[in-house]
Amino acid sequence: MEASDRTADVFFVLMGAILVFAMHAGFAFLEVGTVRKKNQVNALMKILVDFAVSTIAYFFVGYGIAYGVHFLQGADIITGAAEGSPFAGSGFDLVKFFFLLTFAAAIPAIISGGIAERARFTPQLIATAVIVGLAYPFFEGMAWNNNYGFQDFLAAQFGAKFNDFAGSIVVHAFGGWLALGAVLMLGARLNRYRKDGAVVGIPPSNIPFLALGSWLLCIGWFGFNVMSAQSVAAINGLVAINSLMAMAGGIIAAWVAGRNDPGFTHNGALAGLVAVCAGSNVMHPIGSLAVGAVAGGLFVYAFTWCQNKWKIDDVLGVWPLHGLCGLWGGIACGIFGQASLGGLGGVTFMSQLVGSLIGAGLAFAGGLAIYGVLRVTLGIRLTQEQEYRGADLSLHSIGATPEEDVSGR
Amino acid sequence: MEASDRTADVFFVLMGAILVFAMHAGFAFLEVGTVRKKNQVNALMKILVDFAVSTIAYFFVGYGIAYGVHFLQGADIITGAAEGSPFAGSGFDLVKFFFLLTFAAAIPAIISGGIAERARFTPQLIATAVIVGLAYPFFEGMAWNNNYGFQDFLAAQFGAKFNDFAGSIVVHAFGGWLALGAVLMLGARLNRYRKDGAVVGIPPSNIPFLALGSWLLCIGWFGFNVMSAQSVAAINGLVAINSLMAMAGGIIAAWVAGRNDPGFTHNGALAGLVAVCAGSNVMHPIGSLAVGAVAGGLFVYAFTWCQNKWKIDDVLGVWPLHGLCGLWGGIACGIFGQASLGGLGGVTFMSQLVGSLIGAGLAFAGGLAIYGVLRVTLGIRLTQEQEYRGADLSLHSIGATPEEDVSGR
Amino acid sequence: MEASDRTADVFFVLMGAILVFAMHAGFAFLEVGTVRKKNQVNALMKILVDFAVSTIAYFFVGYGIAYGVHFLQGADIITGAAEGSPFAGSGFDLVKFFFLLTFAAAIPAIISGGIAERARFTPQLIATAVIVGLAYPFFEGMAWNNNYGFQDFLAAQFGAKFNDFAGSIVVHAFGGWLALGAVLMLGARLNRYRKDGAVVGIPPSNIPFLALGSWLLCIGWFGFNVMSAQSVAAINGLVAINSLMAMAGGIIAAWVAGRNDPGFTHNGALAGLVAVCAGSNVMHPIGSLAVGAVAGGLFVYAFTWCQNKWKIDDVLGVWPLHGLCGLWGGIACGIFGQASLGGLGGVTFMSQLVGSLIGAGLAFAGGLAIYGVLRVTLGIRLTQEQEYRGADLSLHSIGATPEEDVSGR
Repeated sequence: MEASDRTADVFFVLMGAILVFAMHAGFAFLEVGTVRKKNQVNALMKILVDFAVSTIAYFFVGYGIAYGVHFLQGADIITGAAEGSPFAGSGFDLVKFFFLLTFAAAIPAIISGGIAERARFTPQLIATAVIVGLAYPFFEGMAWNNNYGFQDFLAAQFGAKFNDFAGSIVVHAFGGWLALGAVLMLGARLNRYRKDGAVVGIPPSNIPFLALGSWLLCIGWFGFNVMSAQSVAAINGLVAINSLMAMAGGIIAAWVAGRNDPGFTHNGALAGLVAVCAGSNVMHPIGSLAVGAVAGGLFVYAFTWCQNKWKIDDVLGVWPLHGLCGLWGGIACGIFGQASLGGLGGVTFMSQLVGSLIGAGLAFAGGLAIYGVLRVTLGIRLTQEQEYRGADLSLHSIGATPEEDVSGR
Repeated sequence: MEASDRTADVFFVLMGAILVFAMHAGFAFLEVGTVRKKNQVNALMKILVDFAVSTIAYFFVGYGIAYGVHFLQGADIITGAAEGSPFAGSGFDLVKFFFLLTFAAAIPAIISGGIAERARFTPQLIATAVIVGLAYPFFEGMAWNNNYGFQDFLAAQFGAKFNDFAGSIVVHAFGGWLALGAVLMLGARLNRYRKDGAVVGIPPSNIPFLALGSWLLCIGWFGFNVMSAQSVAAINGLVAINSLMAMAGGIIAAWVAGRNDPGFTHNGALAGLVAVCAGSNVMHPIGSLAVGAVAGGLFVYAFTWCQNKWKIDDVLGVWPLHGLCGLWGGIACGIFGQASLGGLGGVTFMSQLVGSLIGAGLAFAGGLAIYGVLRVTLGIRLTQEQEYRGADLSLHSIGATPEEDVSGR
Repeated sequence: MEASDRTADVFFVLMGAILVFAMHAGFAFLEVGTVRKKNQVNALMKILVDFAVSTIAYFFVGYGIAYGVHFLQGADIITGAAEGSPFAGSGFDLVKFFFLLTFAAAIPAIISGGIAERARFTPQLIATAVIVGLAYPFFEGMAWNNNYGFQDFLAAQFGAKFNDFAGSIVVHAFGGWLALGAVLMLGARLNRYRKDGAVVGIPPSNIPFLALGSWLLCIGWFGFNVMSAQSVAAINGLVAINSLMAMAGGIIAAWVAGRNDPGFTHNGALAGLVAVCAGSNVMHPIGSLAVGAVAGGLFVYAFTWCQNKWKIDDVLGVWPLHGLCGLWGGIACGIFGQASLGGLGGVTFMSQLVGSLIGAGLAFAGGLAIYGVLRVTLGIRLTQEQEYRGADLSLHSIGATPEEDVSGR
C-alpha cells in the first residue's frame, strides 16, 4: 500500500469537506433570518445538534450501507498505513467519509427549514438518525455506488447511467421530498391559515442573517460541486464555471420573478446551485445559465403556490428549493448535457428522468413513513402553548437576545 | 493536449476564486453595517444582483476584451478535452475565468459602498454591465495582458513593466476612482450638508455587521493576492506574509490615527491590504508593513477630509480606501520593491507612477462619463421621498427586520 | 536551492493559515455574542488590534525565540530564491510564519474572552506583545522545536516524546491558563458577586452572534488541526476525522449536560475540538469521539463551578474551555493514542501528563506574573464608571448600533 500517492487527494477532498461543512452554518443562518425571532435559537440548535447526530449515525451505520466500508478496526488499518490494509493511504478513506458526511448531514439541515417553528426537538433527532443512518445511504448507495445494480439497470434500459455528479437528486431532491413528507405530517403553524381561507403572512425576522446564510451556502457550494470529483486528477474547471453561471441565472430570474424581494433573490442563488449539481460536469456554461434561471423562476412561483394556494406550510420553502429545483436539475442534466446543446454528452433524458423520479419518490415515501410513525408514537409537534411562546423559550429556556429580554428594553 | 497537467492549478485557482467570491459577502456586510438600517436590504441586494450581472457581462463580453478568449464553443473544446483544443486542460481556462470574474465583480461592489443610500437600482445594474463588460476589461487587458502594447511601452520608456501583481491599481484604484465619478454625479445624501455649511453626521447602523464584512474581506484577500500567481508553480509565500504585514500596519495606523474608532480600525485592515496588492510579490515584509501603515493613516485622514472638508458624500469612503490607498500601493511598489530597500527589484518608480496614474485617470474619466450619461438619460438617483423612506421599503418593499417592523416593537 | 519543490506545501500551509486566520473572526463574534451589548465594539476591537500587535511581536521577536529564524534579510534570501539561501524555496518559511502566527495570536484572543467587559485596552496590548513575543514562543519552542532539549528529556524519562500535534497544550491550555492568571489579577465584573454571597447572572447579548463565532471557529479548526502536518506529504485524513468525531462528541455531551442550552452546546463543539488537537494524529476516531464527549461535559460542569461556586469571573469560560479541556486533551492523547485502544501508539501516558502539566503550569505562572506586574504599574482595569457605562462608549466613543443609540429608538 503506497501511502504517499493519495496525499494531494486528501488535501483536495479535505478542502471540499471544510467548504461543505461551512454550508451548515449557512443552513443555520438562513433559518435564523427567515423564522420569527422567538425561534432563532431553536434554528441554531437544530442545525448543530443534527450535525452531531448525523456524524454518529453515518459513521456507525450509514456509510457502511452506502459504500460497504466500516471503520471498526485499528487506526493503522483505516489510515492505510498498515501492510495489507484495504484502505487508501494517508487516511484518504477517512477524509472521504468526512466529505460525504457533510452531504448526508445536509438532509436534516434541509428538513429543518421546512419544519421550523413548531417541531419538537428530540423526535427530530431520532428522525435525523434514521434518515442519515438508513434512508439516505440507501439511495446514495444506489446512485453513487451502484448498489442493487441500480446504475447497471438504468444504463441497460435507457442507454446511460444516471448522472448526478454532485447531488441534485441524491442530496437536494432527496432532502426536499423528505421534507415535504415531514411538513405534511406536521401540519401548518398555528394561525397560519384561517378557517375562512385567509392566509396570514408571517414575516421573516432578519434579512441580513438570511443573506448571511445564503452567502455561506453559496461559498461552500463550490466545494460541494467541484470536490465531488473526489480526486485532483478528476478535477474539472467546467464544474466551477457551471455552478457560477447557474447561480447567476438563479439570482437574476428570482430577482425579476420575485420583484426585487431580498428573500426570493438570495434563495434564487441557491435554486440555481441546487439545479446545477447533477449536470455540472457535462453541461455547457450557457446551458447552466439557463438551468439556473429556470430554477430561480421555478422557486419563486412554486414557493408562492405552495404557501398560499396549496397551503403547505414549508417555512423556508425547502420543498420548492431543494425538492423541485433538485428534480428539475436531475432532469435538466438529460437535456443540457447533450452534445447537441453544447454539453459533453454521455447522458440520456430517460435515464435522468427515471433516476430522478425514483430518488424523489423514495424520499417522499420515506418522509411520510418516518414522520408518520414518529407522529403516532412520540409526537412530533410542540404544544400550542410552546409554539405560541416560541421554541426558544419553550425548549431552550433562552431567547436570541437574552440581555434585551431581561432588561425589557 | 494533456488534460492532466493542469489539475493542481485548477485546484489552486479554484480556491482563490472561492476566497475572492467570499469577499463579496464581505462587501455586502461592510455596507450593511455602515449604512442606516433603512438601507440595509438594498445594500445586500446591490451586491448580490451586481455580482450576477457582472458574471454575465464578463462572460459574454468583458473577458474577451481583456484576454481575447471566448467561450462560445462546445464544452469539449473549452475544457481542453477535445483533440486540438486551444484551451488548457481540465477546464483550467474556465476556473481562471471564475477567478478573474470575482476581481471584475469587485468593481461594482466597491462603487456600491460609495453611492449607497440614494442610488436607483436598475440604472446601477446598467452601469455594472457597462463597467464589467467594457471599461474594466479595457484597462485590465492593458495591465495584465499587454493589450495595445501598454506594458511594452512602459518597459521601453521607464525601464520596467508596470507591476500590479494583484490589482492595487487594476482593481482597487480603478474601482475607487470610478466610484468617485459616480459619487460626484450622484450628489450627497439628503440633508447631509446643510446650507449654512454644517456637516450632519450620519451614524452607521451596526458595528458587528461592519466588522463581519471587514473580516470576510480580509480572509478572502489572501486568496485575492496569493492566488494571483495563477499556478502552483508560481506560488510565493512572500505574497502571503506581505499581505499579512500590510494588514497589521493598516490596523495599527488606523487605530492610532482614528483614535480607537472601530470603523476606522476595521477599514484600516482593508487599507493596508489594498495598498499591498501591487507590490506584494516584490516587497520585503517590513516594507509591506510600512506601506500598510501609510495606507491606514491615509485612509483615516482622507476619509475625514473627503466627508467633512471637501463634502464628497462617499458613504463607505471607497474612494479614500480603494482609490487613494490603491494609488499609493501602485506607486509604493516602485519604492519598496527596489532591491536597495530589501525588495526583489525589477520595478521602477516611474513605471509604477505612470501606470498607476493612467489607471486612476481612465477610471475617473470613465466614472464621470458612465454615470453622467445615465444621469441625463435614465436618472440615477432616488426621489427625495424614496430616499427619506429608505431604499429598503421604497425599492424592495421590505425592511431589514420585517417581523419587528410589523409588530411595531 | 530548489525553489519549486515546496510549491505544493506553500499552497497547503497557506490554506491552513487562512483557515486559522478565519478563526479569529470566530473569537471576535463568540465574544460579541456573549458579552453585554455595551461591550460588543470593544470585543471586536480587542481581537483585531491584538492580532496586529501579535503579528509584529511574533515577526520581530517571538518566531526567532521559538525557531531561531529571523527575517531581517533581503527578500531574495528569505524567499529561498537567492543562491545559498538557508530558507526553503518559494517562500515556504514565510507562509509557515503566517500559519504559526495565527496560532500565536490565538493566545490573546483566548485571554480576551476571559477578561472581557472590564479590562483596559492599551495594557492588554502590552500584555499581548509580551505574551506573543516572549512567553508563548518560549514554551512553543520547547514543545515543537525541542528547545532546551525538552523533548529529549521527556523521551528519555518517560519513553516517548510529548505529542501535541496541533496544540491542545501549546495553544489552548497555554492560553487558557494564562487567561486564568489574568482573570484572577483583574477581579470579577462590577456587581457580579454580591456581598451576601449571591451570584448575579449576566445574560449574553446575542445568541446568533455567539453561534456565528462558534461556527467560524469550528470551520477554521480543520485547518488548525490538519495543516499542522505542515507539508502535503505528511497530511493524514485521520486528523480530519478525529477532529470531526471529537466535535460531534463535544456537541452532544454539552447539549445533554447543558440541558439544551445554546451557549453550552455551541461551546461544546469547541471543547471537543480543543481536546482533540494533541492526539488527533494518533487516536482512533472512536477514541476521539470519547475524548470530545468528556471535554463537552467537562466544559459545562467546570464553567458552572468556575462562575458560580469558585466565583472566578471568566466571562466566556476560556479557562474551562481552553485551559481544562486542553489539559484533558494533552493527557487523553496518552490514553487513547495507545495501540491497545485502537490508536497508532508511540505515545506514553507519563510523557503526556508531564508535558501537559509543565505547559499549563508555565502559562499560569506567566499569567499571574505578566498581569500582576501590569496591575501594579499601569493598571489593567477600567474605572467603575467606565465599566458601568460600557467599554464601547468609554473607550471607543461609539456603541454597537450607533444609529439606534442616536435616534433613541
